[in-house]
Amino acid sequence: MTNNGLLIVFSGPSGAGKDTILKRLMEKNPNIRLSVSATTRRPRTGEANGTDYFFISKEKFEVMNAGGEMLESAQYCGNCYGTPAAPIRRWCSEGCDVILEIEVQGGRQVQQKCPDAVSIFILPPSMDVLERRLRSRGTEEESVIQKRLEKAREEIAESSHYDYYVINDTVDDAVEKINRIICAEKQKVHRNANLIERMLNHAETIC
Amino acid sequence: MTNNGLLIVFSGPSGAGKDTILKRLMEKNPNIRLSVSATTRRPRTGEANGTDYFFISKEKFEVMNAGGEMLESAQYCGNCYGTPAAPIRRWCSEGCDVILEIEVQGGRQVQQKCPDAVSIFILPPSMDVLERRLRSRGTEEESVIQKRLEKAREEIAESSHYDYYVINDTVDDAVEKINRIICAEKQKVHRNANLIERMLNHAETIC
Repeated sequence: MTNNGLLIVFSGPSGAGKDTILKRLMEKNPNIRLSVSATTRRPRTGEANGTDYFFISKEKFEVMNAGGEMLESAQYCGNCYGTPAAPIRRWCSEGCDVILEIEVQGGRQVQQKCPDAVSIFILPPSMDVLERRLRSRGTEEESVIQKRLEKAREEIAESSHYDYYVINDTVDDAVEKINRIICAEKQKVHRNANLIERMLNHAETIC
Repeated sequence: MTNNGLLIVFSGPSGAGKDTILKRLMEKNPNIRLSVSATTRRPRTGEANGTDYFFISKEKFEVMNAGGEMLESAQYCGNCYGTPAAPIRRWCSEGCDVILEIEVQGGRQVQQKCPDAVSIFILPPSMDVLERRLRSRGTEEESVIQKRLEKAREEIAESSHYDYYVINDTVDDAVEKINRIICAEKQKVHRNANLIERMLNHAETIC
């Protein structure tokens, strides 16, 4: 089947468990790469260029963005953030699946630029469970928790343009469902356009 | 996730191994039902009404077809064949996944009437393997084998309107891939339209 990797847009509200799922998914699936964002903000202590972010100048960011070299971009607190397209294209052409962890507005931009991307939205089992998970961190004030819950409701309400929902009931189950989605997507006819031509015109085994 | 079953259009050339795959798939997945076609031809010895076919009169067939009660229909050797919609709708509403084993023209009719159907086209690993499989039956003359190969090439060339390809390299592997496709399709956002409304408006756990 297709040798190209998938670009996977991966979103969900705070408290849905995205980071835990990604960590387990990458342990189980060595073919996956995580996209690294570019930003114009300065590195914090301990942050490494190319691992946490690509730290670039505002001028370079603007040139890249204007030249279509960012799959999506946004401003936050006076700094620019974006997703450079080049590393993703390289990984995909090497057969790796690339995950882009991103919020819903950025997800929409990527879907528009890359209609072939697969988009997955992680959901909690219920809003009650989400609230319990946010409270169990024990580090945040009530007003912060209420703000996060309100933001979560907004993000969930805006998720209808995604391709797949995965409910994070247990991490192993969610990871298994994501792996099934990845396998199924690689069987899609539109991702294997030249398979039939090769099969009908050549004698060799192609799978 | 969705409680409705899927309608699965299942096609592929003679010799690709469809029947073997279906048998194994149904052993492993008790939630699957096989659609039964209706025909106006007479039952052969040993054929049971409702199991092999629904044997119905030409008048009844024509009334059902004109009334939109067939998902697809065709004529062959002066007899009518078709797929009654009612049993499929009932099984799907009960949560069963229904497989419709059908050739490509019929598959196209079903896709047009049921855009929600999932369509899977089974491929051999190569045309050489297909030829070896057809020859290994040892029951057919060379001219029959050549006709089957030509028909297989035609069907494969017409398969681009299907959703998924599954290469039947080994039966277990093909069955596993089909099960992953079924699981992934049930995660699709458009099949879970009311999930978000229920999640945001009710407190209970919904998965």
